[in-house]
Amino acid sequence: MILELINGPEDIKKLSKQELDILSQEIRDFLVGKISVTGGHLASNLGVVELTMAIYLAFDLPKDKVIWDVGHQSYTHKILSGRREEFDDLRQYGGISGFPKRKESPCDAFDTGHSSTSISAGLGLAQARDVLGEDHFVVSVIGDGALTGGMAYEALNNAARMNKNFIIILNDNNMSISENVGGMSTYLNSIRTGEGYLDLKRHVTNVLSRIPGIGEQIIDKISRTKNGIKQLLIPGMLFENMGITYLGPVDGHNVKALSRTLREAKKLPHTVLVHVITQKGKGYAPAERNPSKFHGVEPFNIITGEPKKKKKDPSYTDVFSKAICRLAEQDKRIVAVTAAMPDGTGLKRFSRLYPDRFFDVGIAEEHAVTSAAGMAAGGLKPVVAVYSSFLQRSFDQILHDVCIQNLPVVFAIDRAGLVGSDGETHQGIFDLSYLTAIPNMSVFAPKNLWELMDGLEFALSYNGPFALRYPRGGAYQGLKNFRAPIEYGKGEMIYEECDIALLAVGSMVSTGEHVRQKLKAEGWNCTLANGRFVKPFDRELVDRLAKKHWLIVIMEENVLQGGYGPGVSTYIHEHYPHVKIMNIALPDSYVEHGNVSLLRKGLGIDSDSIIWRLKKEYLDMERQNAEWKRLK
Amino acid sequence: MILELINGPEDIKKLSKQELDILSQEIRDFLVGKISVTGGHLASNLGVVELTMAIYLAFDLPKDKVIWDVGHQSYTHKILSGRREEFDDLRQYGGISGFPKRKESPCDAFDTGHSSTSISAGLGLAQARDVLGEDHFVVSVIGDGALTGGMAYEALNNAARMNKNFIIILNDNNMSISENVGGMSTYLNSIRTGEGYLDLKRHVTNVLSRIPGIGEQIIDKISRTKNGIKQLLIPGMLFENMGITYLGPVDGHNVKALSRTLREAKKLPHTVLVHVITQKGKGYAPAERNPSKFHGVEPFNIITGEPKKKKKDPSYTDVFSKAICRLAEQDKRIVAVTAAMPDGTGLKRFSRLYPDRFFDVGIAEEHAVTSAAGMAAGGLKPVVAVYSSFLQRSFDQILHDVCIQNLPVVFAIDRAGLVGSDGETHQGIFDLSYLTAIPNMSVFAPKNLWELMDGLEFALSYNGPFALRYPRGGAYQGLKNFRAPIEYGKGEMIYEECDIALLAVGSMVSTGEHVRQKLKAEGWNCTLANGRFVKPFDRELVDRLAKKHWLIVIMEENVLQGGYGPGVSTYIHEHYPHVKIMNIALPDSYVEHGNVSLLRKGLGIDSDSIIWRLKKEYLDMERQNAEWKRLK
Repeated sequence: MILELINGPEDIKKLSKQELDILSQEIRDFLVGKISVTGGHLASNLGVVELTMAIYLAFDLPKDKVIWDVGHQSYTHKILSGRREEFDDLRQYGGISGFPKRKESPCDAFDTGHSSTSISAGLGLAQARDVLGEDHFVVSVIGDGALTGGMAYEALNNAARMNKNFIIILNDNNMSISENVGGMSTYLNSIRTGEGYLDLKRHVTNVLSRIPGIGEQIIDKISRTKNGIKQLLIPGMLFENMGITYLGPVDGHNVKALSRTLREAKKLPHTVLVHVITQKGKGYAPAERNPSKFHGVEPFNIITGEPKKKKKDPSYTDVFSKAICRLAEQDKRIVAVTAAMPDGTGLKRFSRLYPDRFFDVGIAEEHAVTSAAGMAAGGLKPVVAVYSSFLQRSFDQILHDVCIQNLPVVFAIDRAGLVGSDGETHQGIFDLSYLTAIPNMSVFAPKNLWELMDGLEFALSYNGPFALRYPRGGAYQGLKNFRAPIEYGKGEMIYEECDIALLAVGSMVSTGEHVRQKLKAEGWNCTLANGRFVKPFDRELVDRLAKKHWLIVIMEENVLQGGYGPGVSTYIHEHYPHVKIMNIALPDSYVEHGNVSLLRKGLGIDSDSIIWRLKKEYLDMERQNAEWKRLK
Repeated sequence: MILELINGPEDIKKLSKQELDILSQEIRDFLVGKISVTGGHLASNLGVVELTMAIYLAFDLPKDKVIWDVGHQSYTHKILSGRREEFDDLRQYGGISGFPKRKESPCDAFDTGHSSTSISAGLGLAQARDVLGEDHFVVSVIGDGALTGGMAYEALNNAARMNKNFIIILNDNNMSISENVGGMSTYLNSIRTGEGYLDLKRHVTNVLSRIPGIGEQIIDKISRTKNGIKQLLIPGMLFENMGITYLGPVDGHNVKALSRTLREAKKLPHTVLVHVITQKGKGYAPAERNPSKFHGVEPFNIITGEPKKKKKDPSYTDVFSKAICRLAEQDKRIVAVTAAMPDGTGLKRFSRLYPDRFFDVGIAEEHAVTSAAGMAAGGLKPVVAVYSSFLQRSFDQILHDVCIQNLPVVFAIDRAGLVGSDGETHQGIFDLSYLTAIPNMSVFAPKNLWELMDGLEFALSYNGPFALRYPRGGAYQGLKNFRAPIEYGKGEMIYEECDIALLAVGSMVSTGEHVRQKLKAEGWNCTLANGRFVKPFDRELVDRLAKKHWLIVIMEENVLQGGYGPGVSTYIHEHYPHVKIMNIALPDSYVEHGNVSLLRKGLGIDSDSIIWRLKKEYLDMERQNAEWKRLK
């Protein structure tokens, strides 16, 4: 196998043309084989096999710096840089990440995960190179989907001023995770299909025809230049207009053509954009047919492409998906907004049922939120469905455009809490902190399937900003009989005992229920309360708990700082100084990739860890009491 | 006076051509007169007098919706909509805002303050109109400076898909607050000067000349079309490429031409961009000469243009400005990044001394932070100087691009805390909350002038993300003799007594010192401790305070939720349950415009309010003790 000869970044350069062809096939087989077992990102990786090979041929890693936008397409890069043998543990706890990580390899020049950062990071690296008088190349590889993100444009706008070499590779597969949207997409498509020229002609003809006399003559002149300049003039004028040299389009599956163009790009003393046309899912039929489905996959059967595990429980995403469609049928003012994630957020069904009330804005979380604010100001009831970690992009838009005006925008925040194998960049463990700091914002965390349905209905009836946050994966179906109607700012008492109270929000209610059941089996009776509203928290409920318990355990799946616990603790301390508080939350650190239950255990927020801490606290208290008695 | 005839949005439509000319002059005189007394934004408002008049002539407010990007240029709009008589209280506590506010007038369609939001908001309003089947126009007015912000581009990308009318007015004055930067700016400039065509030609010639034989002929053909199409083909191709119809450029000081073009724009069934060329500061000579200086002004002398109040104390901005230049001389790896605010952040001097190490990225806070992360990964020591409220835009970039990789980026956060007359959108009262929630981030708040200098030096020696936050205005010069060397995570004991401890961070240390002095005059002795590090907070210092005091007053100029207080309180409660805590912080609400000392009083964080609360707490405690004794 040629692949076995590749153990470091220089190895590919030793191969012949024929061997390269074999290598690309072997890499594809390797990727499909490994990912079918571990799960991971497939379609995007199959699309850039040849592009990555060409980069390794044209550049010297790790001396030259390559930044992979988003980074989920970096598997071939990981293979070529010498990490092939670690793919059995891809995205597993302790194994290699599915994204570039500087701590993993010197060939990973910059960590990525969220979209549209690579040009900024690359420009920064190039500027550092120039200030320090170093001599190497910097290459940012960005997809056309990521190009719908505003910060990519901010970076392009700045890249135009470079007077040293900086290379941007536009990996254009005409897709985000799902299909791509917007004016830029239309523009790139016109280059791909060669229709750009026709648009230009139509525009010019249009403008000129308004001018009596001379217009006609000029149109004629331009028509005559058509054939010659068609393929040369139009591609990339938008980038050229901004001051960036454009090369392309190049066939992204032709290693030779690619490395030739990249070598060309290296010669230019400023920013160059190399436009590469690739096919997402290339070389694996099921992924070619449905690249969106094979974007991120669970372990699957290679022959059929079907997932190995049958999906069992409905996820919170499924619950949201159905609930919003049902509510939208009754209220025509309900509209839905997604930032390029109609599948992941569960809005696909809504988009089919209510296409005129569905807005996929591309990978543009900032615009998603502020345009939703505009819709709300215009009388609609927008629901922005988004992953927790991506909503971080919109912090200012929530604070500045939605909440100052107290506009009724509903945030349906999926993947809140630990998400597992995507790791550090994707954990949704900060939203309670950044959302509760914002005035006028309400934050609700449902305990189970039914509470998400009820919560969404409540949110859409509430006249102000409202966030629902719920975790990735199967919706909790326990505590079905506890379905007290939602009241603003009110929690729910589930089991009321005395001595020890568990006060949990969101996913931690089910953990709390496990704690309660396990302790009950040992003869302890715990109170279990569902906070429901993280903001405003239910003071009456806290009062009730504080009056009857010596210990309140506050539980949330979020970092402690700025979360649910500190606010409630501060209140308890002020009014019930004698009540002990135990905060169960995530520590002040990033959480790496791995199986969620392993992560929870490692972080001490699973039921066994909590029981262990609880018992320790109890023994300490007993010891203290004994001490007191002795002293008296 | 014609101006006195204007008391509502329809009134301008009754004027004759001659009266309109007089009106524009009267509005200019009015603006210069009023702002010379109250202070406010001047140059941007003088630039859009005719444009605003034309908008009122071409549209029907409040039925039609006009969104002013940033909004500091909305004064003429406020006058024409009937708020002329309220200008004496402009930006004063209880008076009208310097920005559009929906609660102020139905003619204010959407609140603005931060840059680059108007196209998103306008698109949202237009989409609401279409979903609800309403019939009115939506107009977003955006400056060329704001167009360097990524979310404007995200919105343009989406606006290209509209199939109903939506009008974007590009108010092009070739400036942000300071001079404008980047590829887009160069592009717009080429339209203004008519050089766009030459660039096109150069590009085409370049490309064609590489092709032997046919190239020459085509170049010749294109040359011949030059004169005819020059003014018609090139302007706006970049927008047309994205799918947005371009009209312009139009003279922004010609009311007739403007309203004619706007009426033209109303007829098109999709998104139209009207390119308007204006002059910032137009009609007032000192502002024309130096529009950047007259962007936002304090009260000034109309004849000379000089500020009425002589600047006395150095501001924190001045201190930072000098300190970074001094440090940068010693260490060539220190570079500075600003998002279009070289003056406001104090980096002007740095930019002159070290032009190759200075990066003004335009109004692009996201790119600013991630490119700084790239620079840090490349071996530099970047300092991102930015206002607190604008850094909200970069929350995800700080969390995802800087802090996961633990990169040594220094954030010099100016205007942290209450800023005064700019109001809700500009108060820097959330940074402690959103920064302390981020792992690996250190947050430092200097108590006075010298501590900022020492802190900056320390920050640049620290190998990780480091934020310094300091307030607007004169730097505190008290407590000069307390200058303990900075140690990581360590605070500073200033006066150590017993019973009551004041533990303050940043600006609140001077407030604490006032409290201490006033109480001392009444015979009370208070401990005063300077927290210095908001994150990580100094546990040893807190231990020391908790052991010797029955009450700890924790003081910060930030909202309470997620701030310094709750973290410290949670710690104290866990370890010293008997110690009382009083949190002095800002309430969970937005803070309107007004004089900072009035605001502080109203919010209860001035020394008198704190003393009042302190005494009340003391009396409560005494009463409780008496009660205890009685019961015993």
